[in-house]
Amino acid sequence: MLEPPLPDAFILTLSCPDRPGIVAAVSSLLFAEGANILDAQQFDDQETTRFFMRVVFALERSRLADLRARFAETASDYAMDWRLRDRDRRARALILVSKFDHCLADLLYRARIGELAMDVVGVVSNHPPESLALPVGDDIPFHYFPAAEGARAEQEAKIAHLIDQTGAELVILARYMQILSPELALMLAGRCVNIHHSFLPGFKGAKPYHQAHARGVKIIGATAHFVTPELDDGPIIVQDVEHISHADTPETLVRKGRDIERRVLARAVSYILEDRVLINGAKTVVFKD
Amino acid sequence: MLEPPLPDAFILTLSCPDRPGIVAAVSSLLFAEGANILDAQQFDDQETTRFFMRVVFALERSRLADLRARFAETASDYAMDWRLRDRDRRARALILVSKFDHCLADLLYRARIGELAMDVVGVVSNHPPESLALPVGDDIPFHYFPAAEGARAEQEAKIAHLIDQTGAELVILARYMQILSPELALMLAGRCVNIHHSFLPGFKGAKPYHQAHARGVKIIGATAHFVTPELDDGPIIVQDVEHISHADTPETLVRKGRDIERRVLARAVSYILEDRVLINGAKTVVFKD
Amino acid sequence: MLEPPLPDAFILTLSCPDRPGIVAAVSSLLFAEGANILDAQQFDDQETTRFFMRVVFALERSRLADLRARFAETASDYAMDWRLRDRDRRARALILVSKFDHCLADLLYRARIGELAMDVVGVVSNHPPESLALPVGDDIPFHYFPAAEGARAEQEAKIAHLIDQTGAELVILARYMQILSPELALMLAGRCVNIHHSFLPGFKGAKPYHQAHARGVKIIGATAHFVTPELDDGPIIVQDVEHISHADTPETLVRKGRDIERRVLARAVSYILEDRVLINGAKTVVFKD
Amino acid sequence: MLEPPLPDAFILTLSCPDRPGIVAAVSSLLFAEGANILDAQQFDDQETTRFFMRVVFALERSRLADLRARFAETASDYAMDWRLRDRDRRARALILVSKFDHCLADLLYRARIGELAMDVVGVVSNHPPESLALPVGDDIPFHYFPAAEGARAEQEAKIAHLIDQTGAELVILARYMQILSPELALMLAGRCVNIHHSFLPGFKGAKPYHQAHARGVKIIGATAHFVTPELDDGPIIVQDVEHISHADTPETLVRKGRDIERRVLARAVSYILEDRVLINGAKTVVFKD
Repeated sequence: MLEPPLPDAFILTLSCPDRPGIVAAVSSLLFAEGANILDAQQFDDQETTRFFMRVVFALERSRLADLRARFAETASDYAMDWRLRDRDRRARALILVSKFDHCLADLLYRARIGELAMDVVGVVSNHPPESLALPVGDDIPFHYFPAAEGARAEQEAKIAHLIDQTGAELVILARYMQILSPELALMLAGRCVNIHHSFLPGFKGAKPYHQAHARGVKIIGATAHFVTPELDDGPIIVQDVEHISHADTPETLVRKGRDIERRVLARAVSYILEDRVLINGAKTVVFKD
Repeated sequence: MLEPPLPDAFILTLSCPDRPGIVAAVSSLLFAEGANILDAQQFDDQETTRFFMRVVFALERSRLADLRARFAETASDYAMDWRLRDRDRRARALILVSKFDHCLADLLYRARIGELAMDVVGVVSNHPPESLALPVGDDIPFHYFPAAEGARAEQEAKIAHLIDQTGAELVILARYMQILSPELALMLAGRCVNIHHSFLPGFKGAKPYHQAHARGVKIIGATAHFVTPELDDGPIIVQDVEHISHADTPETLVRKGRDIERRVLARAVSYILEDRVLINGAKTVVFKD
Repeated sequence: MLEPPLPDAFILTLSCPDRPGIVAAVSSLLFAEGANILDAQQFDDQETTRFFMRVVFALERSRLADLRARFAETASDYAMDWRLRDRDRRARALILVSKFDHCLADLLYRARIGELAMDVVGVVSNHPPESLALPVGDDIPFHYFPAAEGARAEQEAKIAHLIDQTGAELVILARYMQILSPELALMLAGRCVNIHHSFLPGFKGAKPYHQAHARGVKIIGATAHFVTPELDDGPIIVQDVEHISHADTPETLVRKGRDIERRVLARAVSYILEDRVLINGAKTVVFKD
Repeated sequence: MLEPPLPDAFILTLSCPDRPGIVAAVSSLLFAEGANILDAQQFDDQETTRFFMRVVFALERSRLADLRARFAETASDYAMDWRLRDRDRRARALILVSKFDHCLADLLYRARIGELAMDVVGVVSNHPPESLALPVGDDIPFHYFPAAEGARAEQEAKIAHLIDQTGAELVILARYMQILSPELALMLAGRCVNIHHSFLPGFKGAKPYHQAHARGVKIIGATAHFVTPELDDGPIIVQDVEHISHADTPETLVRKGRDIERRVLARAVSYILEDRVLINGAKTVVFKD
């Protein structure tokens, strides 16, 4: 006797102006189309009266096209921004780095063991490969694009071309110490994540650990945020902190900060890969696991 | 011109065997009856195949009876355990305490400023009122029920009678250093919360801070859990911890522990009062805010 | 047979320009005078080349005057700022508050059970006593000093007079929503602690929880710092934080913040009372337990 | 004009029965021998009346032999266990691992960038090298020592031989899923650190994440401890935790646990390498930075 095919899992995310009946409409449609909801989270922003939802459901793959077509109608009725994708699909990611490679090494390891569902399609650095502590590995193309003064436009053109060419959906600034031009930031809106090594909005800009030391704070932090044309001002995705003391120097802060940075960036990337992050103006909605 | 009456808010919690269509059934029914969903959370326990849900919705109060009647039919179809209550209703709570009153003082203050939506219908202690550091206040009845050896059954009978008489829905053991009899624990199943001053399952039983000191752990904690006949073994609701060092003595652990205990107990009580805690066998489902 | 009198415990704190031999000089003098060191911590600020030390020692009280005289000579040799006091002495503290009394209630409770070694010599508010949720208690004088526009100088004169009159060594701004004049701030330099409800330097000034909500941060915090004439810019003593989410509103942040504020302020006050906080320019040295 | 040679830094650790004058004796001797104390921490265990101290000092290397000789006399007078070593010396470490290599990869990276001052003299696994996600690298010898039933004694003999041969001072069990024999544990007393994936003493033994899930705890943790013949019962060095929820499965706990495990193990190893950990019977004294 034949077993029926195992259903696959899909993730639906949406946002729209809030009004009664959205949950009923979405869940009834999914039920009618044969989907079984595995997880669902929602948020109703009472300030902007905008509604956000993330639904994970199981469905036989053969029925997906029908569901997608039916859902497009509902989405149109409710003026939804929406996205429907295979839960087990791996995203294509490009990682930008300068000299410090602790975040890069961490992301590559997590991708390698399957914790982060992404294919790293390349690593770009404004420093030559020998600047890194850990070799990137032969399976991942490494691109050395120098970013000298006067050559920035050219360097960014190379990056933009590489994104096009590799089909990178996600661009990760893993301690990439260059500021993106407004044009590139806009082009990557909503799909470029940066790790800033301070607890924003405190200590924007350069050398935040030195700023923190000078101010005498008792906690340091790191912030993963989407990149926007305004420096260190994009929608925040994840933040975390550690306690420090008067005995810490800028050098020990840098060391302690590495742990926070890679933890925060890895978490933000995993949330993005699992479609848990929806942009809400200058803020984010993050449906945590 | 008359404004329409403002809708009230209600909380529906339910659990039932998992099967497709529950969310659609619940949300469609709510929509059809005129309710607007404000918040919804769900959990599908894949081990027990049991489904849990909490829905907050707005509805004109005049329509509540109809909705309740209609929902009872659906609940029956799906074999649901369910509860529907007014979000702004205050629960009646009885607090049991021994000599240490830091949790009691904290709960009373939070109730007083409206942070905890409960009416404290009484405080019971096995010590006289002058044992407490902070007077309970004239507005709350204080009951001194001694618990000497040999008088336990009588003391528990007084407590049970008081619970009946005051209509207490929630019983809070706020550092009450007596072990409830299995009979009383069973009678209060699912509505009696205890704060244990260790990170369970480590250090069950008496003097957990002394046990922690003797073992040389680097973190201490506290655990809020439902009381069951098995000592310190009920479903866990909230846990939290603090880092300690070799220099801590049992006395400093007691002091540091006070902060954890009152924070953890207050959080557990607030979750219970907001219908965020559903019992799942020996565990809990906690729909956090 | 007579037992010798039990020694008392004392705390010595000092700071001075760093040079070799300080620890040897201090510990040898203490040993020669019959003191037994119970705890000692030190910090050598390599940027300012200033040395900081805190020593707890046991000594028969009858020998204290001699030790103090001998130590004054050593202190002079090393150009030390120093202080020597009885470990078990209670400090006199004045608490300033506005309408929100969660920090006040918390400090009073901790003082009452002996956790904070201070005598609260008075509570000052710019609102009448009935504005508070918790009555201060008959044993502590309450002073209602209105702070209307135009009456600020007069109000501060009353506060300054009260500090003089009560001999308050420590002034605690426990959510006191008035800005001290530069004159009063200078007069109280090093002995006035404020709780600011943000993770400074982020969100200085008014309504920090609203600022945090508007920015979309994922963590909120509180900061206890010494008051200086520059608003929210004094040396930081203690900071702590909590994770929040997109679903938090300014109102829930206020509620969550209360727990952080009282924890942070109580910790800072306890550190000050135990002579664990030394001022180091715009920063602090905090010798934690 | 010639500059004098820059002094080197050294770390002195000691423990002895407590009695008055130890600090004075140590600091006076260091001063007399030309050393300048950079950092000093001490702990007086009032239960065992044992005294512990760690001193970092600067000294011209040419004077070290004299100081060591003089100190040996003092140490003998006070019955001290003591150790004096070059602060910048790198320790020789052997890492044991099974299949999960997240801790191994993390330790190797930290050693590579100089954060952990150790030379990894070899990696031993009871699984072949292709079982690891990350290649160990050509510069570090990899030893595959199968540990089949019946071959345990032989396998441990190989490990013991390797330790001898490489001069490994520190042995790190980085998720090594074999239990050491009592003989090997004793041989490595005080220099073998293990990472256990639970918050000990909760969930000793196998599959702690499954145990944690079954119990329904709200926090998971990891514990780095010295290995002793009693399983999971050695002196604890570092612990840390993360909050979890009802929605976590044993699989997601394993994933979340990886981050805690590598953070905790790396911290413990760094403390050991910096001579910050002193064993105090069944407990540790950890002089944190």
